Amino acid sequence: MISKQDAGELIDERRGRAGLSWRVLAERLGVPHVWLAAAVLGMHPVPRAQAEALGEALELEDELVAALIRQPNRAPASEVSSDPTIYRFHELVQVYGPGLKSLIHDEFGDGIMSAINCSVSFDRVPHADGDRVVITIDGKFLPYAWVSGTD
Amino acid sequence: MISKQDAGELIDERRGRAGLSWRVLAERLGVPHVWLAAAVLGMHPVPRAQAEALGEALELEDELVAALIRQPNRAPASEVSSDPTIYRFHELVQVYGPGLKSLIHDEFGDGIMSAINCSVSFDRVPHADGDRVVITIDGKFLPYAWVSGTD
Amino acid sequence: MISKQDAGELIDERRGRAGLSWRVLAERLGVPHVWLAAAVLGMHPVPRAQAEALGEALELEDELVAALIRQPNRAPASEVSSDPTIYRFHELVQVYGPGLKSLIHDEFGDGIMSAINCSVSFDRVPHADGDRVVITIDGKFLPYAWVSGTD
Amino acid sequence: MISKQDAGELIDERRGRAGLSWRVLAERLGVPHVWLAAAVLGMHPVPRAQAEALGEALELEDELVAALIRQPNRAPASEVSSDPTIYRFHELVQVYGPGLKSLIHDEFGDGIMSAINCSVSFDRVPHADGDRVVITIDGKFLPYAWVSGTD
Amino acid sequence: MISKQDAGELIDERRGRAGLSWRVLAERLGVPHVWLAAAVLGMHPVPRAQAEALGEALELEDELVAALIRQPNRAPASEVSSDPTIYRFHELVQVYGPGLKSLIHDEFGDGIMSAINCSVSFDRVPHADGDRVVITIDGKFLPYAWVSGTD
Amino acid sequence: MISKQDAGELIDERRGRAGLSWRVLAERLGVPHVWLAAAVLGMHPVPRAQAEALGEALELEDELVAALIRQPNRAPASEVSSDPTIYRFHELVQVYGPGLKSLIHDEFGDGIMSAINCSVSFDRVPHADGDRVVITIDGKFLPYAWVSGTD
Amino acid sequence: MISKQDAGELIDERRGRAGLSWRVLAERLGVPHVWLAAAVLGMHPVPRAQAEALGEALELEDELVAALIRQPNRAPASEVSSDPTIYRFHELVQVYGPGLKSLIHDEFGDGIMSAINCSVSFDRVPHADGDRVVITIDGKFLPYAWVSGTD
Amino acid sequence: MISKQDAGELIDERRGRAGLSWRVLAERLGVPHVWLAAAVLGMHPVPRAQAEALGEALELEDELVAALIRQPNRAPASEVSSDPTIYRFHELVQVYGPGLKSLIHDEFGDGIMSAINCSVSFDRVPHADGDRVVITIDGKFLPYAWVSGTD
Amino acid sequence: MISKQDAGELIDERRGRAGLSWRVLAERLGVPHVWLAAAVLGMHPVPRAQAEALGEALELEDELVAALIRQPNRAPASEVSSDPTIYRFHELVQVYGPGLKSLIHDEFGDGIMSAINCSVSFDRVPHADGDRVVITIDGKFLPYAWVSGTD
Amino acid sequence: MISKQDAGELIDERRGRAGLSWRVLAERLGVPHVWLAAAVLGMHPVPRAQAEALGEALELEDELVAALIRQPNRAPASEVSSDPTIYRFHELVQVYGPGLKSLIHDEFGDGIMSAINCSVSFDRVPHADGDRVVITIDGKFLPYAWVSGTD
Repeated sequence: MISKQDAGELIDERRGRAGLSWRVLAERLGVPHVWLAAAVLGMHPVPRAQAEALGEALELEDELVAALIRQPNRAPASEVSSDPTIYRFHELVQVYGPGLKSLIHDEFGDGIMSAINCSVSFDRVPHADGDRVVITIDGKFLPYAWVSGTD
Repeated sequence: MISKQDAGELIDERRGRAGLSWRVLAERLGVPHVWLAAAVLGMHPVPRAQAEALGEALELEDELVAALIRQPNRAPASEVSSDPTIYRFHELVQVYGPGLKSLIHDEFGDGIMSAINCSVSFDRVPHADGDRVVITIDGKFLPYAWVSGTD
Repeated sequence: MISKQDAGELIDERRGRAGLSWRVLAERLGVPHVWLAAAVLGMHPVPRAQAEALGEALELEDELVAALIRQPNRAPASEVSSDPTIYRFHELVQVYGPGLKSLIHDEFGDGIMSAINCSVSFDRVPHADGDRVVITIDGKFLPYAWVSGTD
Repeated sequence: MISKQDAGELIDERRGRAGLSWRVLAERLGVPHVWLAAAVLGMHPVPRAQAEALGEALELEDELVAALIRQPNRAPASEVSSDPTIYRFHELVQVYGPGLKSLIHDEFGDGIMSAINCSVSFDRVPHADGDRVVITIDGKFLPYAWVSGTD
Repeated sequence: MISKQDAGELIDERRGRAGLSWRVLAERLGVPHVWLAAAVLGMHPVPRAQAEALGEALELEDELVAALIRQPNRAPASEVSSDPTIYRFHELVQVYGPGLKSLIHDEFGDGIMSAINCSVSFDRVPHADGDRVVITIDGKFLPYAWVSGTD
Repeated sequence: MISKQDAGELIDERRGRAGLSWRVLAERLGVPHVWLAAAVLGMHPVPRAQAEALGEALELEDELVAALIRQPNRAPASEVSSDPTIYRFHELVQVYGPGLKSLIHDEFGDGIMSAINCSVSFDRVPHADGDRVVITIDGKFLPYAWVSGTD
Repeated sequence: MISKQDAGELIDERRGRAGLSWRVLAERLGVPHVWLAAAVLGMHPVPRAQAEALGEALELEDELVAALIRQPNRAPASEVSSDPTIYRFHELVQVYGPGLKSLIHDEFGDGIMSAINCSVSFDRVPHADGDRVVITIDGKFLPYAWVSGTD
Repeated sequence: MISKQDAGELIDERRGRAGLSWRVLAERLGVPHVWLAAAVLGMHPVPRAQAEALGEALELEDELVAALIRQPNRAPASEVSSDPTIYRFHELVQVYGPGLKSLIHDEFGDGIMSAINCSVSFDRVPHADGDRVVITIDGKFLPYAWVSGTD
Repeated sequence: MISKQDAGELIDERRGRAGLSWRVLAERLGVPHVWLAAAVLGMHPVPRAQAEALGEALELEDELVAALIRQPNRAPASEVSSDPTIYRFHELVQVYGPGLKSLIHDEFGDGIMSAINCSVSFDRVPHADGDRVVITIDGKFLPYAWVSGTD
Repeated sequence: MISKQDAGELIDERRGRAGLSWRVLAERLGVPHVWLAAAVLGMHPVPRAQAEALGEALELEDELVAALIRQPNRAPASEVSSDPTIYRFHELVQVYGPGLKSLIHDEFGDGIMSAINCSVSFDRVPHADGDRVVITIDGKFLPYAWVSGTD
C-alpha cells in the first residue's frame, strides 16, 4: 500500500510533467491553492470528487487516487525541516512567536490561534525592490475554556 | 550583566503593571506593534531613542534600557517551544510548509521567502463564529543566485 | 522576579504544611480542583480574586500572589516527564493515541479534540480489587475548517 | 514477515473500504471499541477467536490474521507523535500532568495510576456550542509498595 | 527551598563524614538498605519518623529533614546516566530486555513486571574469581486488563 | 544477507507456532533460558552445536542458523525502548540506579558491577496478592584498577 | 521514482568511472565547479540544457536526467554530518561563528550574510608547508528590514 | 571563577561602550580581526601581552584579563546555533558540504581541510546590488596518513 | 548500487566463512591489520591493487571490489554506538578525554592530536590476571596556527 | 557544597598559576600523570594522602581537598564533547571502533576491553614531520561469561 506521502511526491512529479501550476489546478477544482498543495502533498484527505478530478487531470493510477482520499497521519519524520525554504518559516516563529503570543494575550486574553479552524493564503505581490511572498494566516481565536459536556 | 531575554521579561512585567498594551506603546513610539513586542522580548536591538522613550514610559533602570539597545543573540534554548500558543505556529509550518515551498517554486522559481527582509502584521478580525487572529507574513523573495562580489 | 513555576512549588509546599488538599482549597475558591492544581503549579493565570483568596488562605507573600496572576509560558524544560506518575499518562497516549485518532475520524470526521476548550475531571472510585483513578477528558471537537475572516 | 503495525494499516484500509466503523465492528465481536482500534493498529494481541472473526468480516489474508494474534512490541518510532490529533493528548498531559500527579498523591498517597490495569472509553457527547469528545481513563491506583515474594 | 535531590547529596556527604554505611543506617531505622539509599538520594518520600531519626543520627538541619519527607518528582535531568556504574544497568536492560520481555509473555502472558509494587535487594556474594554484586528485582506481574470502576 | 535481529524475529515466530516455550527449548539445549532468549533475539553468538540443534527443533533454513552463529552488533536503534514491558526495567534503573551505585561504593569501593561477566535469572514466584516476576542480576565486581600489561 | 540524492550518488559513480573531475565537467558545461558538484549531489535543480549535456557526457538513463532537473528538497537526514571532511566545516562555524556574527554587526549593522544570494569558490593553493584548500564564501548582506509589499 | 565565555560577553559590552570596532582593536594589537573576535569571545587563549594591552584599552578587571589568557574549552552548549546570522553558515555547510568534500577528494585525494591550521578572513566588498560579506577559509590539506612515531 | 558499508558486512561474512583473520589477511596484503579492518568495514578507500587481491582471496563479486575502492562517506547513522565493545572506547574518552586535553596543552601547547595523520595499533598482551587488549593511538600534534596561503 | 567538577577547574587554575605541569605534580605524588589529570578534573576519587599532598603543593582550601577525596559521579552534561581536542578522540572511535571490535572478536573471542581495569599512558614522541601524541590504552579483555555466585 503506497503511503499518502509517497503518493504525493509521485502526483507532484506528474503535475510538473503536465506543466500545471497549483493555482491552475486549484481553479479547475474550485478549491484554495494552498489547501490543494498541502492536501496533495499528504496533509489533508481530498474529497472523492476532487480526488477523481485530479486523477483525470493528471492521469493517475487508482491507488494514487485512493491515497489522496485517505485520512492522513500528519506526523512528518522530523518536526523541523532544514530545507531552507521551509526552515525560514520556523525561524520566523522562533523570532516572532513570543511576541505574537504576547499580542494574542494582550488583545484576546489567554488562549491560542487555532491551527485547525484556519486558512492560509499565498500571494505574489510586486515591489520595486523585488517581488514579495505574502502569506496570511487566519485562525479562529480559542480561549482557554473549562467546558464540560457531561455535567 | 542582565541578559537581553531576562530584561525583556522584567520589562514585560512592568508593562503589565502599567496597564499598557503593545499596541498603545507602539503607537506612542511610532513603531509596528509586532516588531516592538519581538524587540522588547529580546529579538531585535531597539534604537537608542525608542529604548529611552520606553525607559521613561515604564520607569526602567538603566541596565534594562542598555539591554534593549544591545545586539541580540537570537538563539533560544529550544528551537521549538511547546507552549500551546507558540506551538500552533510551528504546527502550521509542519502542515502547510511543504505546500508553501511548492507554491513558492511554482510562482517564483527556486528560492526562499526572506525571514530578514520581512514584516509581520497582527490583527483581530471580527467573525460571526468567533473573532479571528489574522497574521500576515510579508517577505522578499530571494532567488538562489550565484553572485560574487570579487570577480 | 520569581518564575511562575518556582512560585508554584513554594505555594505547594505551604499547602502541604497547612494540611489543605486541592479538593478542599478548590471548594473554598469555587473552582474545579484539577484546574486549581494545574493553575497553581504554573499552567494557568489565576484570576486576581482567587489569587488573593489563595494568598490569604496560605499566607503567601505578594510576589507569590503576583506570580499566580501572571500569564504563563506553558513550555516545560522537557516535553515528556519521566516521573513514573506522569509518564504513565504519556504511555497511555502512546498506546491508545492512534486508536483514539481513528475513532475521532470515524465518529466526527477529520479534526481534533481541543486541548484548549477542554475540562479534565479527577475522581477516586472504589473497586473491590483496589480503588481506581478515574480521569475524564472532555474537549470540543474541532473539524479542520478552511475559514477566513478577511474575505 | 509483515510487521504488526503494517498489518494494522492494511486492515484499517480494508475496514474503510468495507464501510465498517470501529463501533460496529466492536459490537459484532463483543469487545470495547477503543480496545479494538488499539489492538488492530498494533498495540494488543487479539485473541484467536476475534482475530478470525475479523478475518472473515474483512476478508483478510492469513498473514494479516496471524499478525493480529501476535504479541506486540509496543514501542513506536517516536515517543511523541506530532500528528495534531494525537499531539493534543500529549499537550494535555504536559499541561495537566503535574496537577494530576499532585491530586493522586493528595487523594491516594505515593503511587501511580496503572496504564496496564486500565480501560479507556470514548464517546461523542452533544453540546450546544459543538459536540464534544469525551474520553475517560480508568486505571487502578498502584501504591509504591516494597513487596518481596522470596523472603 | 532546597530541592530534594540537592538535599540528598548533602545528607550523603554527612553520612560519609560520619562513617556510616547505608547498611548500618538501614538497620538502625529498620528499613531495607536499597530503599533507604534510593529514598535519601531523592526517589521516595521518607516517613516522618525515619526522617527525624536520620536527622538525629546525622545532625541534619530542619530543611534537610523536611526535604526527606517531601513527595519527590522522580524525573532526573537525563533518562540514561552515563556514569559507568549506573550505565552498566541500562546496558543490561538493552542486552537482556527483549529476552526478559519474551519470557514474561511466555510464562505470564501479556503484561509487565511492576516497577511500583517491587522490591530490590543488594548483596555481596563471595566468589573464587572475585566477589559478585547480586541484585534481585522482585516485582508483581500486572496483566493487561481492561477493567473499569465506573460501569 | 538477513540481519541477526530479523532472523531472531522469524525464529521467534516459528517457536510460537511450534508451541515451544523458552524454558523447554533451553532445557533441551542445556543452556540457561534467559541466555537463550537473549541470544536468539540477536544479542549473543550461539555456538554452532546449539544453533544446529535449534535449526532442527524449529526446522530453520540454513541462513537462519548462520545468523544465530554470527557475532552480533549489540546496538539497537534506540537505547531506551518505550515498550511498556521493557521500559519498566529502565525506570527501575532510573529510580534505584543512584542508590545501587552508592551501595556498590559502600560495600566494594570504587568500581562497577560487570555487565559482561554476569548472569541473569528469571523466575515466576507465587504470591498471595498476585504472582511475581523475580529477576536476579549477578555480576562480578570490577574495581577501578590502573593496570598495564606493557610495563 | 528515484530520489534526487540517490540519483546523485549514481551519477557520481559514473563520473568516477569516466575519470572526469568536477572541474573538467564544469568547464565543459560552462558552470562553476562548486555549484555543479552541489547540484549533481542533490542540492540544486539543474537547468534542462546542462542536465542533458551531463546525460550525454556520462551516458545517463532518462530518469537520472529527470532527477537532475527536479526541484530539490534540501533537508538531509542529519543536520550535522560527522564525516570528518564535512564535520571540519561545522567545527569552523562553531569556533568562528560568534566572531563572524560580531564582525558582521560591527561593519554592516544588524543582519545576516545571505546563504541564498551567495557563491562559493574552491581552490588548491600551493604552500611550502603543504598545499592549502582555499574556500571563499561570498554572500550578500541582508539587513533586518521591516518592509511590507501590501501597505 | 568567571568562565571564559562570560568574560567574553562582558569585554564585548565594554568594547561597545568604548566605541571600538574589532578592526580598530585588532590593528592596535597587530593581530587579525577575525582571530581577535573569536579569541575574546572565548575560542582562543590570548597571549599575555595582547591580553594586557586589551585590559588597558578597555579598562578590564584583572579576572577578565586572566580569563582572556586561559586555555579555552571550545565546546558550546549547542553544536548548531539557531541564531539567524550564525545559522546561515551551518546551512551553507549543509548545502555545499557534500560538494566541497567531493572536490577535496577530486583535487587532493582522501583527506580533510584542517580546521586547526587554518585562517579565516572577513571583508566587506561593495557591489551594485548591495554590499557583500566575503569570508575566506584557508586551511591546510591533511591527507589520511598512517604514520607512526614509535616504529 | 550497494553501499560501502553493506559491502563491508558481506565481505566480513565471507572472511568468516573462509576462516581468515584480519591479521592473516593483512600480512598477505602487506598492510596494517587495524587499517585493513577499518577500510573493509567502510572507513577507507582501498587501493585498487589491494582491493583486487582481497577480491581474489575471498572470491568477491566485482561490485564488492568496486565498493572497497570507492571513497567513503565516514558518517555512521549514530555518532555513539551503544554496542558494548565499541561503547567502552567512548566511555574512556568521556572519563579520560578532559585529562588528555589538559596534558596535550601542558606538553605541546594549544592544539589537537590529529585523527587524520594518525595510526592505530592493536595487540594482545599476556598478563597473569588475564590477557590484555593494548591499543596505541599515535597522531601528529597540530598546533592552532593562523596560516594563509593567499597573502 | 562545591561540586567535584567545579573544584577541579579551580584546582587546575591554581596549578596554572603555580606553573606546575601534570607530569611534575604526578612525579611528586608518585602517581601516573594521566590518572592524576583525570582524577583532579573530577573523574576519580583521590586517596586522602595524595589529596592532602596536593592541598599543600597548591595551597588549596579544605573544601577543595574534600572534593578531591569524594567519590565522583562520572556523568558529564554531554556524552560527546565538541571541543576539538576531545572530539578528535570520539572521531577516532567512530572511524576505527568497528574495526577494533572485529579485531577483539578475532583474537580474543566475544567480549570487550575493560574501561575499568585499564590504564592510559600519554607521551610526546619526536618525529621529523612534527612531534606526535602517543596514547596507549591497555585494558583487560573480559569475555562474555555467564557466571553466577549464587548457584
